Amino acid sequence: MNTKNTREILEIVQQIFSTKIPFNNLLGLKLETLDIDNAKITFEMRDELVGNFIHGILHGGVISATLDVMGGFTAFLGILRKMEDRSYEEKIERFSRLGTIDLRIDYLRPGKGKLFIATGSVLRTGNKVAVTRMELHNDENKLIALGTGTYLVG
Amino acid sequence: MNTKNTREILEIVQQIFSTKIPFNNLLGLKLETLDIDNAKITFEMRDELVGNFIHGILHGGVISATLDVMGGFTAFLGILRKMEDRSYEEKIERFSRLGTIDLRIDYLRPGKGKLFIATGSVLRTGNKVAVTRMELHNDENKLIALGTGTYLVG
Amino acid sequence: MNTKNTREILEIVQQIFSTKIPFNNLLGLKLETLDIDNAKITFEMRDELVGNFIHGILHGGVISATLDVMGGFTAFLGILRKMEDRSYEEKIERFSRLGTIDLRIDYLRPGKGKLFIATGSVLRTGNKVAVTRMELHNDENKLIALGTGTYLVG
Amino acid sequence: MNTKNTREILEIVQQIFSTKIPFNNLLGLKLETLDIDNAKITFEMRDELVGNFIHGILHGGVISATLDVMGGFTAFLGILRKMEDRSYEEKIERFSRLGTIDLRIDYLRPGKGKLFIATGSVLRTGNKVAVTRMELHNDENKLIALGTGTYLVG
Repeated sequence: MNTKNTREILEIVQQIFSTKIPFNNLLGLKLETLDIDNAKITFEMRDELVGNFIHGILHGGVISATLDVMGGFTAFLGILRKMEDRSYEEKIERFSRLGTIDLRIDYLRPGKGKLFIATGSVLRTGNKVAVTRMELHNDENKLIALGTGTYLVG
Repeated sequence: MNTKNTREILEIVQQIFSTKIPFNNLLGLKLETLDIDNAKITFEMRDELVGNFIHGILHGGVISATLDVMGGFTAFLGILRKMEDRSYEEKIERFSRLGTIDLRIDYLRPGKGKLFIATGSVLRTGNKVAVTRMELHNDENKLIALGTGTYLVG
Repeated sequence: MNTKNTREILEIVQQIFSTKIPFNNLLGLKLETLDIDNAKITFEMRDELVGNFIHGILHGGVISATLDVMGGFTAFLGILRKMEDRSYEEKIERFSRLGTIDLRIDYLRPGKGKLFIATGSVLRTGNKVAVTRMELHNDENKLIALGTGTYLVG
Repeated sequence: MNTKNTREILEIVQQIFSTKIPFNNLLGLKLETLDIDNAKITFEMRDELVGNFIHGILHGGVISATLDVMGGFTAFLGILRKMEDRSYEEKIERFSRLGTIDLRIDYLRPGKGKLFIATGSVLRTGNKVAVTRMELHNDENKLIALGTGTYLVG
């Protein structure tokens, strides 16, 4: 097992995430990866992210965008686990080829809160396609939305 | 039929859209409504909307957000058609209650282009729920993504 | 709380399920409801339910049909919980008006097994719409497929 | 172009469809393929396919099953078009590997009618994954339901 290599990959991916994907920054997304089995994306409420001006709740598009990003990252972690002994280059190359095929979002509660936390889990990882499930909670641990995504990973 | 009233509603909704929904502005969405049967949302490519830094293509979250907005607006137009003879207040009240229940996005081609155009059509309009289908094309008329959304309208 | 009434409703619904919905019988679905918080649908593998003749695995349509039925029933249980003190007639009337708006199925593993078990949980219950999540396991407790459904309950 | 080969494949697939996939028979599905660009699946209403015993309408599971089958077949036709000059064996082999990854069904109108017709179109065909859209009409040409499916084709 090549744990050092994996740790390095996660750091580089985190750097790419925060410096090379402009829309993640526009949303204010922060990727937190303590280890390969524990990742989350957080972001703070800001005026620019509001969809309903009367109630001050999160725009649905912020939710779908965040859950799509979380799903893609979850799919990548799933692949990383299966690639433990591969080279650094192969792993980064896989990351760059990742793409969303389709996405379903279920909006369950109004997006109220100061901070939001997205998490994800892998439902299926193959050589070509991964399916993931994502959740968005607010800072009171209320479930705001659920996502299901299918990603091209091959 | 109360066409004048409908025209007025569309103008007010357009004003709400562009001044009271901050995230629409962050994305740069422009709502164009010549009449009740002809609406579209357009936006220009900008560096902030990029998801893939190597290929300079649109972030999937921009696509899902735009198609969700277009679906909600399409659902509202569907209701407006059924409310022709109702009062101005009833119509605005309906708009404020609109919410997305669920959304599916199919990503078909990389989001390349200078300008993107979202359109929508109603699949089902009831008193409680509307189902809509949405498309995103680029300025070369290539179909980038499809959406299907279920909206609470009652 | 009108528990006796609820028990009675569950028995009648179970009777409707097994005698008045012919396609449930064609599939061989059995509804098991010990109580309002514990329902499942089971069915046995039979030659008629095969989709892939080489591997003898379940037809995808059997899976989607079963998860749709389970989702509808789960939505009904969610309403029942909110209607505890209502009359018998009101509850049955609600059951007869239930309808699927949309359904997503994620096929995760080949449908191998002798017995299959569908379960469900409520994600959202409103006065008009319920959203549910469903799972199909085989007799070795392997997760075969997941479903997400939106139901009209109003 | 190897049209004769393609014609032959379609005949064999049609034979597999009607003799080796038992659940298709249980539903009464008939595959009609005049040519590679013109396929449909039809079935007649029968008592066994009823879901709502009061109104005598089609069970939702019959709809989802039929649209899944139509989507898979549509995906296969999409691959066939890209494989025109390949051998007979390669084409059949591709058919045997086809599998549904995920499926969305939108139920638009009650399934009333004597005959139902499913059609499909390809939204995206790659080497690994195909995305298709399907429709179910009744014999009065009313749109009963829509499907969107993602299929593994590699």
